[in-house]
Amino acid sequence: MTAPACTRTVRFGVNYTPRVGWFHHWLDFSADDVARDLDTIAELGVDHLRVFPLWPLLQPNRTLIRPRGLADVERVLELAADRGLDVCVDGLQGHLSSFDFVPAWLTSWHRRGMFTDTEAVASTATYLTALAKACAGHPNLLGLTVGNEVSQFTGTAHPEAYPASETDVTDWLQTMIGALRAGAPGTPVLHACYDTTWYDDTQPFTLGHVATLGDATVVHSWVFNGTAQTFGPDAFETRAHARYLIEVARAFQTDPDRPVWLQEVGAPRNVLPASSVLPFIEATLDQLVDTPELFGITWWCSHDVSRSLADFPELEYDLGLIDEHGTIKKEGLVVAAAMNELRRRRAAGATDAERSTLLLDPTELTRRDLAPGGAFWEHYMTIARDGRHPRVTLAATVEA
Amino acid sequence: MTAPACTRTVRFGVNYTPRVGWFHHWLDFSADDVARDLDTIAELGVDHLRVFPLWPLLQPNRTLIRPRGLADVERVLELAADRGLDVCVDGLQGHLSSFDFVPAWLTSWHRRGMFTDTEAVASTATYLTALAKACAGHPNLLGLTVGNEVSQFTGTAHPEAYPASETDVTDWLQTMIGALRAGAPGTPVLHACYDTTWYDDTQPFTLGHVATLGDATVVHSWVFNGTAQTFGPDAFETRAHARYLIEVARAFQTDPDRPVWLQEVGAPRNVLPASSVLPFIEATLDQLVDTPELFGITWWCSHDVSRSLADFPELEYDLGLIDEHGTIKKEGLVVAAAMNELRRRRAAGATDAERSTLLLDPTELTRRDLAPGGAFWEHYMTIARDGRHPRVTLAATVEA
Repeated sequence: MTAPACTRTVRFGVNYTPRVGWFHHWLDFSADDVARDLDTIAELGVDHLRVFPLWPLLQPNRTLIRPRGLADVERVLELAADRGLDVCVDGLQGHLSSFDFVPAWLTSWHRRGMFTDTEAVASTATYLTALAKACAGHPNLLGLTVGNEVSQFTGTAHPEAYPASETDVTDWLQTMIGALRAGAPGTPVLHACYDTTWYDDTQPFTLGHVATLGDATVVHSWVFNGTAQTFGPDAFETRAHARYLIEVARAFQTDPDRPVWLQEVGAPRNVLPASSVLPFIEATLDQLVDTPELFGITWWCSHDVSRSLADFPELEYDLGLIDEHGTIKKEGLVVAAAMNELRRRRAAGATDAERSTLLLDPTELTRRDLAPGGAFWEHYMTIARDGRHPRVTLAATVEA
Repeated sequence: MTAPACTRTVRFGVNYTPRVGWFHHWLDFSADDVARDLDTIAELGVDHLRVFPLWPLLQPNRTLIRPRGLADVERVLELAADRGLDVCVDGLQGHLSSFDFVPAWLTSWHRRGMFTDTEAVASTATYLTALAKACAGHPNLLGLTVGNEVSQFTGTAHPEAYPASETDVTDWLQTMIGALRAGAPGTPVLHACYDTTWYDDTQPFTLGHVATLGDATVVHSWVFNGTAQTFGPDAFETRAHARYLIEVARAFQTDPDRPVWLQEVGAPRNVLPASSVLPFIEATLDQLVDTPELFGITWWCSHDVSRSLADFPELEYDLGLIDEHGTIKKEGLVVAAAMNELRRRRAAGATDAERSTLLLDPTELTRRDLAPGGAFWEHYMTIARDGRHPRVTLAATVEA
């Protein structure tokens, strides 16, 4: 997985949210259901999907990793391969669409440090190695992620956070990334944070982790984080948000050629009225045209959550490119068309233009300054709004 | 389910702890594995078993009750019927051997009152009705329990307790019992508490609930609650504990003919050295000989927890009557023999003797007085130690 080879092509995928039963489908795994879902997903013109086994189902006891659970993940890889689709597999779910799935051996009477307890960390690593090993033999394995936004489980935002320092997180991520590599040598290995890592000074998962650990800088962009609420659904800032996260994270990279993967981006209807959705999609992707190191874009998500399932935040029911009955939505057609346009323009050389440099001095700024409406944010947006997105560069890097 | 018909026979059963995978077996349900387990269980001479589907697997979303999960429970009923065994099915697990299994729709970001939130309570009731309905058609259905010690989830003992008042619990239990009756009209319906209900004044599940709601008074007796530690593994008090819980609970009954079910009793090795185990079993059952209203005894448990599974309290690995390889243990033979002796003596009229009365005045005592070493406990044990267990009677009942 190297940036140069991917620079112009840009991989296009979806986060696979099974149509029947959402991620509870693992409890009633049906190859027929998955095959039908993937047939529709393939019609979108994607080249890959990201899949999410539920951690408590795969490792229900600390020392029990279910062979049949691993076999079900492998079956998804096979069904995807039959349709020419690559697959990125996430390990620790963990957190999905507001629901937390944590094994009983880490909760309640058995609560212990998810990121710090020696036995818990070792057993989590054992699971990731087993998962990686199961996937490793499949030629369409695109990558392995430690888990979906595992950063959700620490910091001050979570109601039942597992405490961890920045050093704890460094150690933990290195262990988990090593565990995936041990199971699948040579496969790209990632980890993924949500935007508290960019914006919240209490979050021990840092931009240093995002930009230097694993084989790519992974970005999840969600404008319901206050951006769309503050600036409006049709504001430049809202449509520039994904690009902004990429540029800020990239500044913390030590390897300038490191690929960047926009692994989650979606059009949340709680902050985007119907009339804003399609322009949001088009403008968000348009602003990514001249991001040279962009490896891929994986839209959230494939299928709407069924209205028969309760308690999801309202926005989760409408995030799909395919509706709950299996029909491709207008959003799906627009994302696919915008991806084609993005690829066409990149192939035509849109990534090669000169850009201004914007210095970011971490010794003088807090993450609050980077957040929507913060001093650095405003400075960046002023430049970007007037023309091209600036190239953010750490002050320390320039001085060195 | 009426006491008189059962008085002398006393049902004998085991709590079924699957040999392979413990209760995680539901994730990999194998009728062959269950059939083999039940073959061994049947060799113990039992007439019934108690089974425990895991709540988060059966109802992973508040509005998703998995038909295949219900079908697996039905399959256990069928396999038991093939071996002449009746089955009691518990609904809300909930808590099992130190592990908590709570659906994601009741935890973390979705935390809401398990006992008090209108939607949560209604959806829990819907699940119990569905479970009852699935079981109702099976002639070997012996009873339905709301859940295994759901009282674990409230009061001050639990690290993440769901708050509830005594009135909340009354309402909740009535709703859950009604939900089971709605699904399986005519089937005995139970609810089960652990001993904080007897001993802890902060526990909102009360002896009134134990003694008056549902179709039997259910008792779970565990001498690792301080009894064996305080009095010693071979003490009279330790071996009298199950009988004591029965007599105290029975005092709160308004129907004197209400059956009593010792639904859990076991010989925990953390407080009983090897030399004390068999005498403990024999003496515990011997003291139940003259309990006229005793409906049944369901030993905890069928199979030892496999040493391949981590993080159980040490005592849980040795509670089985059958070892982790499927061989009946000495404990199994002794429990079976002691049950035969108990039945023989009851048939011979051992339940008919006169007993002294011991008044219990709830207006003057707290539950702390009932607990091991408390004033009432000591008074009771002094009488029981000298001869027959006294009949505990509420002072108010006598005055009325």
